[in-house]
Amino acid sequence: MNRLAAQMQFLLTCDQLKNIIRTTTLHNGSRMENSAEHSWHLALMALTLAEHAPAGTDMNRVIQLLLLHDLVEIYAGDTFFDVSAADLQQQAEQEWQAAKQLFGLLPEDQQKHFLDLFEEFETQKTPEAQYARALDALQPMLLTWGQGGLGCTEKHPDLTMERLLKLKEKHLRRFPVLWEFVLELLQDAVKAGILHSTPGAEENASEHHPA
Amino acid sequence: MNRLAAQMQFLLTCDQLKNIIRTTTLHNGSRMENSAEHSWHLALMALTLAEHAPAGTDMNRVIQLLLLHDLVEIYAGDTFFDVSAADLQQQAEQEWQAAKQLFGLLPEDQQKHFLDLFEEFETQKTPEAQYARALDALQPMLLTWGQGGLGCTEKHPDLTMERLLKLKEKHLRRFPVLWEFVLELLQDAVKAGILHSTPGAEENASEHHPA
Repeated sequence: MNRLAAQMQFLLTCDQLKNIIRTTTLHNGSRMENSAEHSWHLALMALTLAEHAPAGTDMNRVIQLLLLHDLVEIYAGDTFFDVSAADLQQQAEQEWQAAKQLFGLLPEDQQKHFLDLFEEFETQKTPEAQYARALDALQPMLLTWGQGGLGCTEKHPDLTMERLLKLKEKHLRRFPVLWEFVLELLQDAVKAGILHSTPGAEENASEHHPA
Repeated sequence: MNRLAAQMQFLLTCDQLKNIIRTTTLHNGSRMENSAEHSWHLALMALTLAEHAPAGTDMNRVIQLLLLHDLVEIYAGDTFFDVSAADLQQQAEQEWQAAKQLFGLLPEDQQKHFLDLFEEFETQKTPEAQYARALDALQPMLLTWGQGGLGCTEKHPDLTMERLLKLKEKHLRRFPVLWEFVLELLQDAVKAGILHSTPGAEENASEHHPA
């Protein structure tokens, strides 16, 4: 019964992920997305887009990684993806401390299991972690610039198509089907006037955020 | 590419689950929960409480069922669990129509696969569907009456411990560890003054909602 009590306390703490507000909106623009519903959407994407992952990818593990990957934000907060390398490094350290604190609520064996999953996602060495991260990179673009999307030029005037591609390519390019989809999505968004394009600016952009 | 376009359109439509508001609040009472973040929480519960399911339960399938189970609410809406049998029947029919409409956005083979998962959850014949439903019945109780919970006596003055147990037992009693947890949770809530108790009233309650 002690294991169960610890697990329930963990699950109650995890409820706080519903109050972590991301920097992107829902597809209809009505409000900002929170990290709990974002995690659900990613897990559903993994289930729906399973056939586009490389053969042999364990989609159930992808889903597990996605269910857990943002939990550290309960203690460490969410970060916009377009930040400096130094900020990213600091964020990574905070998140590791947060993971130890949060998963530390669980029985010891399970603590290790969840920390392993979190570390697998963070270190990006397995096909499962890479596919999970690709979906995480794709989802906000789908909501923002997918059919009926509203863009975000007012809020992020400097986020051009070229800058986006530069920032996202390290996660998405290794999955050609997803990468092609993103290219078309953003090109259509530029044509529709909901995304700026500044050809030639990507070199400058890359200085802020090495791929 | 046509398959991918259909899948992405499905995923954009599913974004609307984030705007389906449930009848229960977050643990801190700050706002009502939506069905997307609820689905994430359930999937996380399945992952965390896997060891308490009967041996042989396929927890990855439980998670898949939970990721999909509320999607029909996009077209059919959410229903409070304490309603008449006639209302439940009408709701079930609406949900089946909604499932056909929503999953109909997908390629045909996948449509069938997702409809099968939805039907498995609804018909409650497999251990996986039963464990998924048990977690679905437990989660709002954990948020409402778990440690630090606020109860809901103002909003639902008639929802006594006896009535709750009567309504929930058909989902939870077959999992003794979870059922014992719920019994203790609600008894503690009564002691803490955040849940009413009316011994002997359960027979009357059962007339409205046969178990």
